[in-house]
Amino acid sequence: MEHIGVGLIGTGYMGKCHALAWTNVLPVFGEGPLPRLVHLAEANADLAGARAKALGFEKATGDWRELIADPDVDVVSITTPNAFHPEMAVAALEAGKHVWCEKPMAPAFADAEAMAKSAKTSGRVAVLGYNYIQNPIIRHIESLLTLGAIGTVYHIRLEMDEDFMASAKTPFSWKNEAAAGYGALDDFAVHPLSLLMTLFGPVGRVFTHMSKPYPNRPTYDGVPREVENFDIASVLFELASGISGTLAVSRASWGRKGRIAIQIFGSLGSILFDQERMNEAQLYTTTDESANQGFRTILAAPQHAPYDRFIPAPGHGLGFNDLKTIECRELLNAIAGAPARVIDFERGLEIERAVHAMAASHEQQKWIEVGTQ
Amino acid sequence: MEHIGVGLIGTGYMGKCHALAWTNVLPVFGEGPLPRLVHLAEANADLAGARAKALGFEKATGDWRELIADPDVDVVSITTPNAFHPEMAVAALEAGKHVWCEKPMAPAFADAEAMAKSAKTSGRVAVLGYNYIQNPIIRHIESLLTLGAIGTVYHIRLEMDEDFMASAKTPFSWKNEAAAGYGALDDFAVHPLSLLMTLFGPVGRVFTHMSKPYPNRPTYDGVPREVENFDIASVLFELASGISGTLAVSRASWGRKGRIAIQIFGSLGSILFDQERMNEAQLYTTTDESANQGFRTILAAPQHAPYDRFIPAPGHGLGFNDLKTIECRELLNAIAGAPARVIDFERGLEIERAVHAMAASHEQQKWIEVGTQ
Amino acid sequence: MEHIGVGLIGTGYMGKCHALAWTNVLPVFGEGPLPRLVHLAEANADLAGARAKALGFEKATGDWRELIADPDVDVVSITTPNAFHPEMAVAALEAGKHVWCEKPMAPAFADAEAMAKSAKTSGRVAVLGYNYIQNPIIRHIESLLTLGAIGTVYHIRLEMDEDFMASAKTPFSWKNEAAAGYGALDDFAVHPLSLLMTLFGPVGRVFTHMSKPYPNRPTYDGVPREVENFDIASVLFELASGISGTLAVSRASWGRKGRIAIQIFGSLGSILFDQERMNEAQLYTTTDESANQGFRTILAAPQHAPYDRFIPAPGHGLGFNDLKTIECRELLNAIAGAPARVIDFERGLEIERAVHAMAASHEQQKWIEVGTQ
Amino acid sequence: MEHIGVGLIGTGYMGKCHALAWTNVLPVFGEGPLPRLVHLAEANADLAGARAKALGFEKATGDWRELIADPDVDVVSITTPNAFHPEMAVAALEAGKHVWCEKPMAPAFADAEAMAKSAKTSGRVAVLGYNYIQNPIIRHIESLLTLGAIGTVYHIRLEMDEDFMASAKTPFSWKNEAAAGYGALDDFAVHPLSLLMTLFGPVGRVFTHMSKPYPNRPTYDGVPREVENFDIASVLFELASGISGTLAVSRASWGRKGRIAIQIFGSLGSILFDQERMNEAQLYTTTDESANQGFRTILAAPQHAPYDRFIPAPGHGLGFNDLKTIECRELLNAIAGAPARVIDFERGLEIERAVHAMAASHEQQKWIEVGTQ
Repeated sequence: MEHIGVGLIGTGYMGKCHALAWTNVLPVFGEGPLPRLVHLAEANADLAGARAKALGFEKATGDWRELIADPDVDVVSITTPNAFHPEMAVAALEAGKHVWCEKPMAPAFADAEAMAKSAKTSGRVAVLGYNYIQNPIIRHIESLLTLGAIGTVYHIRLEMDEDFMASAKTPFSWKNEAAAGYGALDDFAVHPLSLLMTLFGPVGRVFTHMSKPYPNRPTYDGVPREVENFDIASVLFELASGISGTLAVSRASWGRKGRIAIQIFGSLGSILFDQERMNEAQLYTTTDESANQGFRTILAAPQHAPYDRFIPAPGHGLGFNDLKTIECRELLNAIAGAPARVIDFERGLEIERAVHAMAASHEQQKWIEVGTQ
Repeated sequence: MEHIGVGLIGTGYMGKCHALAWTNVLPVFGEGPLPRLVHLAEANADLAGARAKALGFEKATGDWRELIADPDVDVVSITTPNAFHPEMAVAALEAGKHVWCEKPMAPAFADAEAMAKSAKTSGRVAVLGYNYIQNPIIRHIESLLTLGAIGTVYHIRLEMDEDFMASAKTPFSWKNEAAAGYGALDDFAVHPLSLLMTLFGPVGRVFTHMSKPYPNRPTYDGVPREVENFDIASVLFELASGISGTLAVSRASWGRKGRIAIQIFGSLGSILFDQERMNEAQLYTTTDESANQGFRTILAAPQHAPYDRFIPAPGHGLGFNDLKTIECRELLNAIAGAPARVIDFERGLEIERAVHAMAASHEQQKWIEVGTQ
Repeated sequence: MEHIGVGLIGTGYMGKCHALAWTNVLPVFGEGPLPRLVHLAEANADLAGARAKALGFEKATGDWRELIADPDVDVVSITTPNAFHPEMAVAALEAGKHVWCEKPMAPAFADAEAMAKSAKTSGRVAVLGYNYIQNPIIRHIESLLTLGAIGTVYHIRLEMDEDFMASAKTPFSWKNEAAAGYGALDDFAVHPLSLLMTLFGPVGRVFTHMSKPYPNRPTYDGVPREVENFDIASVLFELASGISGTLAVSRASWGRKGRIAIQIFGSLGSILFDQERMNEAQLYTTTDESANQGFRTILAAPQHAPYDRFIPAPGHGLGFNDLKTIECRELLNAIAGAPARVIDFERGLEIERAVHAMAASHEQQKWIEVGTQ
Repeated sequence: MEHIGVGLIGTGYMGKCHALAWTNVLPVFGEGPLPRLVHLAEANADLAGARAKALGFEKATGDWRELIADPDVDVVSITTPNAFHPEMAVAALEAGKHVWCEKPMAPAFADAEAMAKSAKTSGRVAVLGYNYIQNPIIRHIESLLTLGAIGTVYHIRLEMDEDFMASAKTPFSWKNEAAAGYGALDDFAVHPLSLLMTLFGPVGRVFTHMSKPYPNRPTYDGVPREVENFDIASVLFELASGISGTLAVSRASWGRKGRIAIQIFGSLGSILFDQERMNEAQLYTTTDESANQGFRTILAAPQHAPYDRFIPAPGHGLGFNDLKTIECRELLNAIAGAPARVIDFERGLEIERAVHAMAASHEQQKWIEVGTQ
């Protein structure tokens, strides 16, 4: 395939990120099909037109179904709010398009299941936007684990924290409604779970406690309204492999801006990572001489593929948007039938299942086996 | 009181630490009674004699009851293994001595209760060796909290990790026996709990999961023996005040040497601390201008009493042993009837109660209200 | 202007970086002319053809003069080795093209002067690739300085270190020849100087000492050859404004990968920066309450323009390549006659002048006033 | 020797530090003579009496000559302002006492020479208070260097910074007078020099530039007075061994509280240290596998003697005062004729000589060979 026709639905945070990825993937990797930016859909035709011009798309529409019907479109980037994912993804797959959909899949688990089923039926590639697994440093951590650099892993701690809900003054929004999901659990847990499951396999059972810093938030008309979901969630887990661990997520942690902190403990060493310093990993290994052991800070470098495709010099640093470019490359691999590091709808469903088990555990105040809730 | 007669039982890690504290407390603080190092007890008379000479004690004995009977002894430092604490502490209190006992109080909760009861009956001062609460930086954090620097606290994460049980080759020892307690929970949880309860009050309820990296450990004769307790424990908690949080402890975390990591999240900011960098606290506050907000590293300084009693210059750093000297000073305050920052047997019992609730939760796999187990 | 025709000479490290910048500048900033990737020149036609395809250029040539003669080309990116800059830049300017040339300008100062003269005569925009000044965090530091956040600056320390010449086994290369320049001074000093002069104005006088870790390096045929320039340079300086400081550069500092460390000391505070953590600045200000003063880590965020054009969420991190995209945007501003944050050939000449003064100081072992060497 | 009689002159910052060291040295090390705190001298008899009581000395005097004449005194700690060192040290040595004198030796080089001469003539032990070389982590760095862990060292950068002169409002004091010496150079340079010369041997030649943030400072009566020395000094140096480096010191660096930053670059790796985190060293070594190389943080631990004498557990941290206790132990070794890690008056004179060469260089604006100024 020389060209691949791209449709983009939604041009917010993630929409722009997809557009940049499509723009960069060929010049960065220097091979693969040339993405042709064919069609862009937004809430209305005017906005769509303006964004298409800015982002370099040929056509624009206020009706996403038109985009899906476009025969020049081979793959559809879906970057709308989560509630729209199921309808759009299923429609695109049924129209024979490949799909690149932002995560999480859907607020309702049944919808996510329908998406996965549709993907299977369609025979098309259907991939979710779990960009953090694409970080060359995360790949290097995976390689260290595979090579046994820290022996057998037996315990893991994960945290994901931001602070956009930390202020009591932040007004009540749709994100605080029960209809939007469980809160921090939906917003954040999928990310550390994508890393956890990529590195260590499926989750066995979970126990969850959720809390909220503020029972009410001010509405724009000044009346306090009860917050219906939880800005903080803390989870104990066991993986299917027997590894134990904790997962803590919060969207109310002042000072945390994009923290995804991972601590991995094994029989011969430990590995640490924090997304806020995404170009660094820390490795402690007992093969170092006793008096000289310590956590060493490894800076991202050309040895950690595909960092070298972006920059030939070590320690110069990738950015958040670069992760999406790598993800785009993996998507193209998948479309080409080559081995690809992606989380497809089927694996994505496993992540969603774990999240829903966590929520069920909070409600039932007991351990929940993932898949049985 | 011009002099205070000191008896020391045990001269291991903590015994030496007590001896140094008794030696330093007057020259550091420049006031208060002169500790007279009267009597030292060790497992046998020879060892006791050698240690008394090295540590500067007047008399030595292989029989701790002799020390307790010594009329020149006003206060007894008990630094023996935990199992000996109850008998010694009760005997000392009944003999009319003040007691400074290392933590935890006792492996069995009933014994800890007996100690607390004996302390109450005796009317003497009975204090536990919770040195971490004495850190000037921890005191400064407390002051920040009191002044509302980070508003209303609603979430806390605590970790305490070391690595002395991280190797599979570490032989089976008494620490791995059920008789020694629950494992990491006993060894470590009391420390973060002492900080938590000092800063935020009593624990309401807990949910615990414990795990072990190695089901067996080699014995010295080469036969693997089943490990009977847990090197790792993870706890969800709610304080009586409603604050939610997590507590994770492990004695099998490679690379962690004396980590006690605290994350405190409030409505106006956050505070971080790690005992491995015990002279630093990190403060994030929303009163800083938006574009300039960030975690700031506060170095211990004379403004953070009683740092100034040790060093008049900021940023030069206290050491672990200095915390015990401060604790000793507070003990002397308590004996003098002055306000004192100590964890006495009664408050210590609350800590033990929380630990036992955590263990009960693991066994019963449900939330346990502290005090009801 | 709706379109701008781009020519690119050279497709190595910086060539690819320019190509990515040209590709990204419109979708990232969402406004400005559409760059049309017209013509790419490489050492031979085959390579040029392959790279043009990968990077998305319409035409390819093995003869850069052909590119310069192309009427569809409006601006020429020059990313070849430094020795080629003068001829190519002058030719492009004389052909009426705007020029975007990588730094440093030229090994010989006279050639740099000729380039600056040609730029002036041509009336075209001629800009150098000093990307580090474009970092949103550096811009924020500039804004802090302008607002007086740390008062009057009186002392500065700069370091730039990498380790690609740190091994004794690294074979002798053209970089070790005197013809290639002074060594680390040429490779690195221009970068911290670009930051220094952007933030604080021109350099007054300098005193330099240079050294080399290895007097000889192995050639590929095994015969040791004398190293003709210096991998390490240390400089004392005074700015024209009277600010004193130090500049240390090395390409033989094991473990340093892209370090550009800046320490700025003022009457009311201090600011720190390190390019290896390019999304962070550290600010210490005496307006914080005494007991709470400390260096605070500010993470790059949407408040620090133009970070927001890349990512709407704080703390997610830009990468090295993103700086070139910002630089490209500023170049387009300059071409449009709008205010632009660029280092043009005239200001670039000031940087080169300072570097040459540094080298002269080493040779003459005395203070050299910049501009008098 | 079973006992050693101690006299202490001065009870300020360093006086108390000496007293604590004398108090701790036996219980910490568990062997060696018992220091008997015999005599304490202060500016007047009342103060002396109060301090003697607080610090545990038997006798007190307002006349230091009385202390020196005391036959029970074997060793004299001199902790008065520098200007008093020569007279007191010489008198003590002539009275047959060992001397432990704080650094620097004396404001005038001739006085320092007289002290060294007197020490030699006396045959007594005369040692300076260079406590930073006693840090177990510094000793470990020395051991790493000796073992060749980073190969052949060829470049070093040193910084020592505090901020007690950073404010323009800090009133003019005796420290700002020329009679008090060169300023930061005297206050600070001796410390990094003590480390430099301990680890790498004598300094060959130096080039210095000094500056002052404020030409005037307010006097207490409100009249501005000209500052006569320099709060900032920057030095280029070559060691006798040929190693090149930089030394930067400042007492006007806001936010720096006790920074002594060292960067050591060798043919096989690098070592970093900062006194503000005195329990940590950072090691980068090329023997680590390429993709895993990074600076590793080594926490002080029992393997780093004599840390184990203070604390048997790793990572718990020594404090600033503990360094003086180790120094005291080394002094006792020297007095006992055993191998001792001390900087005696003769080696101290070398440090002073380097400092005076630095000052001469600033005045003469040329390289100065140490020993020829």
